[in-house]
Amino acid sequence: MSSGTLYGVGLGPGAQDLMSLRADRLVRGARHLAYFRKAGRKGQARAIVEGMLRPDVVEFPMEYPVTTEIPLDDPRYNEILAAFYAQCTAHLRALMAQGADVVVLCEGDPFFYGSFMHLYTRLRGSVPIEVVPGITGMSGAWTATGQPITWGDDVLTVLMATLPEEVLREKIANTDALVVMKIGRNLPKLKRALAQAGRLDDAWIVEYAQMPRQRVMRLSEAEAVTPYFSIVLIHGQGRRP
Amino acid sequence: MSSGTLYGVGLGPGAQDLMSLRADRLVRGARHLAYFRKAGRKGQARAIVEGMLRPDVVEFPMEYPVTTEIPLDDPRYNEILAAFYAQCTAHLRALMAQGADVVVLCEGDPFFYGSFMHLYTRLRGSVPIEVVPGITGMSGAWTATGQPITWGDDVLTVLMATLPEEVLREKIANTDALVVMKIGRNLPKLKRALAQAGRLDDAWIVEYAQMPRQRVMRLSEAEAVTPYFSIVLIHGQGRRP
Repeated sequence: MSSGTLYGVGLGPGAQDLMSLRADRLVRGARHLAYFRKAGRKGQARAIVEGMLRPDVVEFPMEYPVTTEIPLDDPRYNEILAAFYAQCTAHLRALMAQGADVVVLCEGDPFFYGSFMHLYTRLRGSVPIEVVPGITGMSGAWTATGQPITWGDDVLTVLMATLPEEVLREKIANTDALVVMKIGRNLPKLKRALAQAGRLDDAWIVEYAQMPRQRVMRLSEAEAVTPYFSIVLIHGQGRRP
Repeated sequence: MSSGTLYGVGLGPGAQDLMSLRADRLVRGARHLAYFRKAGRKGQARAIVEGMLRPDVVEFPMEYPVTTEIPLDDPRYNEILAAFYAQCTAHLRALMAQGADVVVLCEGDPFFYGSFMHLYTRLRGSVPIEVVPGITGMSGAWTATGQPITWGDDVLTVLMATLPEEVLREKIANTDALVVMKIGRNLPKLKRALAQAGRLDDAWIVEYAQMPRQRVMRLSEAEAVTPYFSIVLIHGQGRRP
């Protein structure tokens, strides 16, 4: 029997009608659907496709092991996650060996800081894989601010707020336009780095971009607490006639 | 009579089925359709929507004035473009004053280095405007390479090849992942900057991403000539379990 295909499908920032036609068709037709989520949660990717699924869909929620107690640089962190991805991969491989196609839901774009990449690198070469790009969360966020992110020759830097404070400060001081992701409890560190780089007053924060709960604020006026998926932006001011 | 609405619609990288459902609906329903193009060309944005338009559509091609003889820093360059955008804006404003909605086609994402922004900043506040984000050309390009662009805490830098060589070199030397756009005749300069930064061998070039003519090559193996819309990439190699 020939192998099924793995589809890594970018869902975009959150609104169903910001999904591509190709993604929409694959999600609606999926008999086997896989997605990552935190244990005990519905999962953001799964929430986006609510109401779109076949009645006979078979869902495979891949629940992240709890690692909040373990620092990122502890070898146990990598061991636990590697075992988790191996387990997910084995299940997907078994389905595809029976000829089944599997759609993996990906928030935003699958190849842009996405969890799908961990499955992709493990399965590439052994099963057919197709990746469908999506509108990134950052596009959703800058659109929500009502201001273009980059003009002319502007340099855009994309940073994760999980980086050390001094790295954030240096990168923020040396770019025109800025996007920062993975914020959550890194917000105080990020605000200090922005202030030290002299750019706190230019920064905006978007929570739940392109979703019903969307909020857009100047970062200087935001509360101290924000979701992990919030995005901080500084708009470029480059050349324009 | 109440004003029509201006829609800035991101079409994505090129394939019709990578358009969002929202963009697809707006394009198919448009009575008035505007788009930028080079004089004498069909235009890339217009080509993407071929076969999707209403039979009674009214098209308004906005043809860039020829500026190739004038350096970017010559004041005449800005004067000519400013007059062009004023002329386009006046036409759109007149249509909307008659109550007509107008869809402006935008390759990729409207707020990411897009020409639509020049209309947007001139019309904002005087007419209703809605912006529909799209899949960026760079997402289309990294998907085409079959390799994720960013992992873990990777820093992504987006550069225009129109920047001075020493700026390109310094930025390329100080990032994990890289995207370079607006290439065309800046290719030799970009290759020198990549080589000086020690990263030429890591670079890929994607021509016509997600279009029938798509080509993906290592930059070191590419010809000396490439289209303006080609994208050069270096994939991040960040943390992964």
